[in-house]
Amino acid sequence: MRDIFVLTEADLRKFISLNLDIVDVVERAFLALASGKVVMPPILSMDLPDVHGEVDVKTAYIPGFDGFAIKVSPGFFDNPKIGLPSLNGLMILFSAKTGLVDALMLDNGYLTDIRTAAAGAVAAKHLAPSRVDTAGVLGTGVQARLQIAAAHLVRPFSKVLVWGRNAENAASCARDIAASLSVEAVALADPAEVVRKSQLVVTTTPAREPVLKADWLHPGLHITAMGADQAGKNEIDPAAILAADLFACDRISQSETVGELQTARKAGFPADRVPELGEIIGESKTGRSKDDQVTICDLTGTGAQDTAIATYALMAAKKADIGTIIKA
Amino acid sequence: MRDIFVLTEADLRKFISLNLDIVDVVERAFLALASGKVVMPPILSMDLPDVHGEVDVKTAYIPGFDGFAIKVSPGFFDNPKIGLPSLNGLMILFSAKTGLVDALMLDNGYLTDIRTAAAGAVAAKHLAPSRVDTAGVLGTGVQARLQIAAAHLVRPFSKVLVWGRNAENAASCARDIAASLSVEAVALADPAEVVRKSQLVVTTTPAREPVLKADWLHPGLHITAMGADQAGKNEIDPAAILAADLFACDRISQSETVGELQTARKAGFPADRVPELGEIIGESKTGRSKDDQVTICDLTGTGAQDTAIATYALMAAKKADIGTIIKA
Repeated sequence: MRDIFVLTEADLRKFISLNLDIVDVVERAFLALASGKVVMPPILSMDLPDVHGEVDVKTAYIPGFDGFAIKVSPGFFDNPKIGLPSLNGLMILFSAKTGLVDALMLDNGYLTDIRTAAAGAVAAKHLAPSRVDTAGVLGTGVQARLQIAAAHLVRPFSKVLVWGRNAENAASCARDIAASLSVEAVALADPAEVVRKSQLVVTTTPAREPVLKADWLHPGLHITAMGADQAGKNEIDPAAILAADLFACDRISQSETVGELQTARKAGFPADRVPELGEIIGESKTGRSKDDQVTICDLTGTGAQDTAIATYALMAAKKADIGTIIKA
Repeated sequence: MRDIFVLTEADLRKFISLNLDIVDVVERAFLALASGKVVMPPILSMDLPDVHGEVDVKTAYIPGFDGFAIKVSPGFFDNPKIGLPSLNGLMILFSAKTGLVDALMLDNGYLTDIRTAAAGAVAAKHLAPSRVDTAGVLGTGVQARLQIAAAHLVRPFSKVLVWGRNAENAASCARDIAASLSVEAVALADPAEVVRKSQLVVTTTPAREPVLKADWLHPGLHITAMGADQAGKNEIDPAAILAADLFACDRISQSETVGELQTARKAGFPADRVPELGEIIGESKTGRSKDDQVTICDLTGTGAQDTAIATYALMAAKKADIGTIIKA
């Protein structure tokens, strides 16, 4: 009989929130991934068209970490019709020494939300111009809010511009951002204006046709594209990727199969021009070299980030004495 | 807040055991898989050479089932040195309507053991000669015992022959089988003799070189090979597969990548000669047509079997009022 820690979403919300500690945790996961020693198999993806659902499973082993996480992320898109969120999921943390289950994190996707936002902060920290006055966001969901909050941790801008397909949602998102970050936040009807007036833009949409056009690029701009995470998704005009001074991503193999490189490769973007973010952090590849450059970073989300945040969450839960123990 | 059922191995052992009900459940999973409507993505497999470990993740969606299981099976082969079993794992049962977690089955591989044995019974039921007096087993582990017990449910033989690389383990396995099934069970030093004297043979080894040779085949023999489940594993001499009257498997794509078709294909075994077991059960393909034929069935283990047994286990747990409920 062993102790298995069970942490619910309510438990996790008590002691895990978006802050610079978490950004550090996720930054170390990027570094580890770039070291080449991480074992990260391709995402297991199951499409359930019958029930308008999909399930992804991600994992990664990071040498030196006590555990490795397996994360299951179901998305069932008819759920909102019955008052349930589309996205759910859990993480299982296994001992990296014995393979035994150490913890079950019934987080309903909360840890993913946090680590995804933290990854955006890592991208902004290493790639955005040194000074950002205005940040823009395309998309109006949970990640629109969290990505802006995360970016604000590393580039404390004073103004936020929001665009979404639904004007009401955009206004509501801008109000939430203004309230939580004490910044000026405005919803705009034209995504071109959002991009042209911002030094840092995050795209957070499930788009299958580009929502950000090459024409809108301007000197001194960084774009983080975090929406695409499935075959067929595409937020950034391939011409924008071809025109940028630098395109980076979290994992080339994922960006090519589920992220922005799907269309950019077809448009002729060369294979040798893609550093991974961890390589830029570790300075084995060059990131932004001048403030007036245009940089784009595609984040598809990695199992290494899940292992990093789950390991951190278990440690923090034990310290805070939160959770339920099951003998199994 | 929702109720999530947590079932430990101890809970599950109270009400799940190898019997004809479970064989029926697994047989229906084979049938469903052959219907073509099951969604079963390739196995996610992560190799951890640093720690002499591996992790497999399997899943399948079966239309008409309330849930789908995701099974995580870690194997850490240095565990016995510290008194722990090599194999572990858990199953998570998700609602097939909403993707929400319905149950966590911390079974340490117990449900896998049972469904794997039940799959052996399904293969024996549909492919073994109608009368089996003597059954043989190559291998002496948990599955050697369970496969023989499962086969005995559908072909009530009176004698069992056991071979293993370690004579002491073989003797101990034979003793256990004799005691649990009330049959005569004998360990033999020569695997050829086991095969030649049996009408039904199960191979249950982790072999990477064939343990069952073509020379040993004889009229009126069925072989179930359940050991190979990883790239590089191989129990059956490819020449035996070429020589048999019928070779079937649970899933062609898996047999080709982790099972016996890996080597048989290289030896020239033709692609069009492989029915899946579910097709034989559903009678869309022909199985054994005469008692004096030689048949071989390769079982690699499918996510459909996991979904079937996990769904059954949750239903049975609720009926028996066993398990712990977590609000999440």
